[in-house]
Amino acid sequence: MSENKIPYKTYLDENEIPKAWYNLRADMKTKPAPLLNPGTGKPLTAEELTPIFCEELVRQELDNDTAYFPIPQDIVDFYRMYRPSPLVRAYCLEKVLDTPAKIYYKFEGNNTSGSHKLNSAIAQAYYAKQQGLKGVTTETGAGQWGTALSMACAYLGLDCKVFMVKVSYEQKPFRREVMRTYGASVTPSPSTETAVGRKILAEHPGTTGSLGCAISEAVEVATQTPGYRYVLGSVLNQVLLHQSIIGLEAKAAFDKIGVKPDIIIGCAGGGSNLGGLISPFMGEKLRGEADYRFIAVEPASCPSFTRGRFAYDFCDTGMICPLAKMYTLGSGFIPSPNHAGGLRFHGMSTILSQLYHDGLMEARAVEQTSVFEAAELFARSEGILPAPESSHAIRVAIDEAMRCKETGGEKNILFGLTGTGYFDLLAYQKYNDGEMSDYIPTDADLERGFAGLPKVEE
Amino acid sequence: MSENKIPYKTYLDENEIPKAWYNLRADMKTKPAPLLNPGTGKPLTAEELTPIFCEELVRQELDNDTAYFPIPQDIVDFYRMYRPSPLVRAYCLEKVLDTPAKIYYKFEGNNTSGSHKLNSAIAQAYYAKQQGLKGVTTETGAGQWGTALSMACAYLGLDCKVFMVKVSYEQKPFRREVMRTYGASVTPSPSTETAVGRKILAEHPGTTGSLGCAISEAVEVATQTPGYRYVLGSVLNQVLLHQSIIGLEAKAAFDKIGVKPDIIIGCAGGGSNLGGLISPFMGEKLRGEADYRFIAVEPASCPSFTRGRFAYDFCDTGMICPLAKMYTLGSGFIPSPNHAGGLRFHGMSTILSQLYHDGLMEARAVEQTSVFEAAELFARSEGILPAPESSHAIRVAIDEAMRCKETGGEKNILFGLTGTGYFDLLAYQKYNDGEMSDYIPTDADLERGFAGLPKVEE
Repeated sequence: MSENKIPYKTYLDENEIPKAWYNLRADMKTKPAPLLNPGTGKPLTAEELTPIFCEELVRQELDNDTAYFPIPQDIVDFYRMYRPSPLVRAYCLEKVLDTPAKIYYKFEGNNTSGSHKLNSAIAQAYYAKQQGLKGVTTETGAGQWGTALSMACAYLGLDCKVFMVKVSYEQKPFRREVMRTYGASVTPSPSTETAVGRKILAEHPGTTGSLGCAISEAVEVATQTPGYRYVLGSVLNQVLLHQSIIGLEAKAAFDKIGVKPDIIIGCAGGGSNLGGLISPFMGEKLRGEADYRFIAVEPASCPSFTRGRFAYDFCDTGMICPLAKMYTLGSGFIPSPNHAGGLRFHGMSTILSQLYHDGLMEARAVEQTSVFEAAELFARSEGILPAPESSHAIRVAIDEAMRCKETGGEKNILFGLTGTGYFDLLAYQKYNDGEMSDYIPTDADLERGFAGLPKVEE
Repeated sequence: MSENKIPYKTYLDENEIPKAWYNLRADMKTKPAPLLNPGTGKPLTAEELTPIFCEELVRQELDNDTAYFPIPQDIVDFYRMYRPSPLVRAYCLEKVLDTPAKIYYKFEGNNTSGSHKLNSAIAQAYYAKQQGLKGVTTETGAGQWGTALSMACAYLGLDCKVFMVKVSYEQKPFRREVMRTYGASVTPSPSTETAVGRKILAEHPGTTGSLGCAISEAVEVATQTPGYRYVLGSVLNQVLLHQSIIGLEAKAAFDKIGVKPDIIIGCAGGGSNLGGLISPFMGEKLRGEADYRFIAVEPASCPSFTRGRFAYDFCDTGMICPLAKMYTLGSGFIPSPNHAGGLRFHGMSTILSQLYHDGLMEARAVEQTSVFEAAELFARSEGILPAPESSHAIRVAIDEAMRCKETGGEKNILFGLTGTGYFDLLAYQKYNDGEMSDYIPTDADLERGFAGLPKVEE
């Protein structure tokens, strides 16, 4: 290899870590619809949100106009421990695919939480600390978010109480153990510690829990314990704001090597990674300064964008959270137990939903066996074992690269490699043993989910 | 933090990856003693070694004089996927310790094998491929080496057959699964696939295996299958040669920031990491160009340096491997089942043994509960969950930093952070639950090991 080519990994200098997060909403002509109070049907106010969320985070959540939020120096210092993350040129994957396309990925997995979740966890924990709070509560399913929050809280000396969906608590004892090592208290949900938990246990004695139930418990503890607030790792506007660091760094790295991506691909569960990755590029598109193709990739088993409705819905299955206007399968829709826990959410970020609705972004649904096929090919050629969630993006990046091979197009493809799969090896084992299957909901399955959508007058 | 200070992470440019490995033996006044043929008691010749090892690797193994071996471009390209690894300034750990010492670590865990083992795995697989071989065999205990070799073989399209100690195969199914994902065949040892395996199974029907037995099986398959050779992840001179990349990069990074380390610390099992990390610094010391303190850290439960004998011994418990002159507890010594599988070896690299014997290096034995205490402190402050092996070095780095606090000395401390602990969470769980204990062998335990040392006339 010549010494003058684009390097395998482009790192920004630590002093080049962005000094401000970018708020994509500021450049959106059609703003995302506001959160509504499910009781009154009226937009939620800061006063209604501050008992649940930290004050500064509420401000960030509701601000559709400020383009840049300065990143506090303490957060930048924390980012310096594991950022800037590399922008990687996938030379080895290109060679294996024998494609004229140039493939890049922004790799967010090189930290102990194993994913991009840490970018928002440290921000949310920081503002809780600044407000003089004692601790925060949250829920976790697969465990990436809970791990990230535990790490951030350990760093700042903040209590961290995680309600972990019971089935995950039992099946993923190692995720639980990482959180404990970082000093978090981890409770299997439903638990007897909350009124809602006790109620659910009384009604469904053998239940293994759900994300909706864990959210309800975390919110109950946060609102009823002095000095605590609730934090969330995806879906919210504030989360996409913090995650803009991914896209800002990626764009700066591309500028450094003099390359412009043509296609930008990310997996989408609640939207935290995709929203962060695309934000500065989408901003350019919205301002008419440049054009890009954006592709959101979701599991065929939980196809919010590709088969969902654009409507107001609850963010949680317990129906205690605000109503958000989003692409949704209905808060009662139960995704099949696929192996990408981070993508098993019925709804989607309101920002991304509006962009998709306005035709600014494409979406694609992929089946999990084809996702793991892509994951294995990627692992063997690029040397990184990817998370199942991230592998959805890999699948479509490979598909697009193969299309370039047919057409001879030399597109620059960027995808978000959100994390590593070191805690997902039961899924790899199923794939390696040929025991993985696909599941696509029928129209009737979807209709049952849509039937539960709340009636909201807009 | 000011923008002009030493950064958290110093990365070399990819074009600054060393172009040659450094052979520390070339600068040693007293060369390490040669390997002996256990049958004849005579130094092993290249002819005797080539049926087992690849030709170029045999050449590297026996060469005590050539100071630099050029790194083939294909290996440099592979290194570019995950190297240069960062030299990290542990600002956050320093702050927590409130020490005047400046702590640095060379972090080798940011690749899917999770450790430095990949540096030698790719080299050994490359030479096997160059020789036109079909595949390689090896053994693995905890799994880092087997994983690294699987990755290297997948990249080069080489068969990889791993004999995994049965108890690890069963207790660490996820390690096994990573290897399978990289296309390796993983066999629990002892197995019925080899004569030696069948013999051991007949004699000890319920055995859960040992590293010595797995080595015997891997060597048998390598020597009896056309187109195969055996490879090993530690102890050998060739491995230390390849691992010199760690120290060469660390030294180049220190030069870049204008810092000279005073104390260099590494964990020591067979010596692959410690030998690689210290090599260019030790070279300067041997040539009288600079002085450094070197500290090898080993588990108190397996104290080869601090309580072993400097004598010829078998490298394996099965007594089929060559005799090496080294600090050893006797090939029959059975270390307690501590949680640093990579350090549970009765002997030590002949190079490091000679250096220690010549008073050029110190050694310290530490107990595992104090190791996990250090690991947890490190994880919470620096955001990386360390491997139990690496945490031995962390323990002593912290001890030295605390000594600086007492004396007011502003020493620059460097330690090797060889890997991450994502597959060691059962050990962390034991520690978190307060169920971890220490074990220090009695003098009588050691005498039993020494009683098995072979009689060798030197």
